[in-house]
Amino acid sequence: MNRTIILNNRPAGRPQLNDFKTIEEEMPLIQDNEVLLKTRFVSVDPYLRGRMNDTKSYIAPFQLNKPISSGMIAEVTESRHPGFKQGDFVTGMLEWKEFQKSNGQGLTPVDATKAPLSAYLGVLGMTGLTAYLGLTEIGAPKSGETLVVSGAAGAVGSVVGQIGKIMGCRVVGIAGTDEKTAMLKSDFGFDEAINYHTTADMSQAIAKACPEGVDVYFDNVGGTITDGVLANLNKFARIVVCGSISAYNATTMPTGPRLEPFILKNSALMQGFIIGNYSGKFPEAFQKLSLWLKEGKLTYKETIVEGFENTPQAFIDLFDGKNKGKMIVKI
Amino acid sequence: MNRTIILNNRPAGRPQLNDFKTIEEEMPLIQDNEVLLKTRFVSVDPYLRGRMNDTKSYIAPFQLNKPISSGMIAEVTESRHPGFKQGDFVTGMLEWKEFQKSNGQGLTPVDATKAPLSAYLGVLGMTGLTAYLGLTEIGAPKSGETLVVSGAAGAVGSVVGQIGKIMGCRVVGIAGTDEKTAMLKSDFGFDEAINYHTTADMSQAIAKACPEGVDVYFDNVGGTITDGVLANLNKFARIVVCGSISAYNATTMPTGPRLEPFILKNSALMQGFIIGNYSGKFPEAFQKLSLWLKEGKLTYKETIVEGFENTPQAFIDLFDGKNKGKMIVKI
Repeated sequence: MNRTIILNNRPAGRPQLNDFKTIEEEMPLIQDNEVLLKTRFVSVDPYLRGRMNDTKSYIAPFQLNKPISSGMIAEVTESRHPGFKQGDFVTGMLEWKEFQKSNGQGLTPVDATKAPLSAYLGVLGMTGLTAYLGLTEIGAPKSGETLVVSGAAGAVGSVVGQIGKIMGCRVVGIAGTDEKTAMLKSDFGFDEAINYHTTADMSQAIAKACPEGVDVYFDNVGGTITDGVLANLNKFARIVVCGSISAYNATTMPTGPRLEPFILKNSALMQGFIIGNYSGKFPEAFQKLSLWLKEGKLTYKETIVEGFENTPQAFIDLFDGKNKGKMIVKI
Repeated sequence: MNRTIILNNRPAGRPQLNDFKTIEEEMPLIQDNEVLLKTRFVSVDPYLRGRMNDTKSYIAPFQLNKPISSGMIAEVTESRHPGFKQGDFVTGMLEWKEFQKSNGQGLTPVDATKAPLSAYLGVLGMTGLTAYLGLTEIGAPKSGETLVVSGAAGAVGSVVGQIGKIMGCRVVGIAGTDEKTAMLKSDFGFDEAINYHTTADMSQAIAKACPEGVDVYFDNVGGTITDGVLANLNKFARIVVCGSISAYNATTMPTGPRLEPFILKNSALMQGFIIGNYSGKFPEAFQKLSLWLKEGKLTYKETIVEGFENTPQAFIDLFDGKNKGKMIVKI
């Protein structure tokens, strides 16, 4: 039998395990021009929370009682498709199933000899592309500028900070544990790191860590952390709104200080970044990330959870910041 | 004697008449390479409120017990400067004095035969340039798109809406009286107008007035009006943050719904517009505005207050929306 994880309820606020349900299905049978895929790695990402709501957004909501889907790495275990052979590894937006069939559409081959398979879900996958393209296309950092990254120990933030260093910026990261802030400096080369859980006055802490103000803010979290950063913007600052994890589980509209006066007085730019809008630039970005990885200029962390059945818990743990770097489920 | 209006107190909240003081000074005496200027028109603008606070912003604060300054039109009544002769009219950032001397720096001649003098403070002056450059440089409207303008009956907003129509947009204006909303449609050619004072649900009203959503939002006011617009953004919407009049008199930090999720899910861009950053484009903008004015494609309104001594009250009245179009004091 083939285990599949479906959306059992639309979460009210923070997702719970019983919002998901594992069901058993018949093993799929493939026909001509199809492949059978065995799931090897599942990416869990904060943005999936948005798809669990039944609201209009940049991507369609998940359907109730249907499988969740996310970025995955799978192995071709059977092929009747001319483009794939048994033993190939592929990545794509796939369903949370142990096995599934595919007609090959949306599948991209990945080369297990060039990087560990899981890297294609992180630094060489959607989160790496998001870091590179969000930072370069909207943040447009210049050498000598100060870059602040929230959610800095996460899959996107840790890559953003390293790219900022490669581009010659002073880089300040914000994360939620002392272990993470230590890691930002020791493993990822951030100049400064702030633990927002133990910092009473974020605005003051940012001011101290950024004596020349903030030129680029790469925001993965929103909320009060963002308020602290915006109080320290420089003229012509750029704010990449990449995520709002602090708001994803909100059941009422989160409120806070109005930000327009900060945007106005600094002639600042704030722009929402959705990776799908930049698909034309994926090859360029992938090439840069691969090169830096090969040259040792870029490193990455993964939090690997074992076992298909633990996928929902791994997803839920994102909202408690239990991951360092990319959260991945290994089957 | 020469009357001068100085900043008597930094206003706490809404400015009051006693925050200003009229003093009498000796008439200035000019020397070689100087001109004597007689004030003819004084521009009062919401942004001056920011300069009355002692806080860092894009422009230095006014000093206590020193004259206020703003855009003005003056007549050269005496000249010992080779570049100016008696009877010339000039515009520039000048002090709130009946007479003042100048070495000519920062003065621009204006041609009273081409447009009424006061127009050089409005549609052909800073507010017209702000409307044109804010809309075209950040808003970048395309024909067929929907443009929403807040503070639409004001000096900037009324010009923004007309330029939007010239550029082929559906234009919806937001203002604070039925008289103003009627004027937006009858005099300025807006497609729809919303009176925010009599509208309970701004979001719903915007949705109704913008059946295809909002592509460009030119924001002069901020606050709850902006909240209503942001709930109706289209993908890739552009938000020109030109003013936040709703926040200028705030004594505590105004709060409201967090806007980042709206920015994010629509891949929207929000950018602060400060006219001084675009001075290289003033000639192009001035040319366009002059041409449209001459061709009758652009019209404007002025609220003219008579008497130098009424300048502070005219300024205060801006915050009650007592102006239609540009508020100007005539001496």
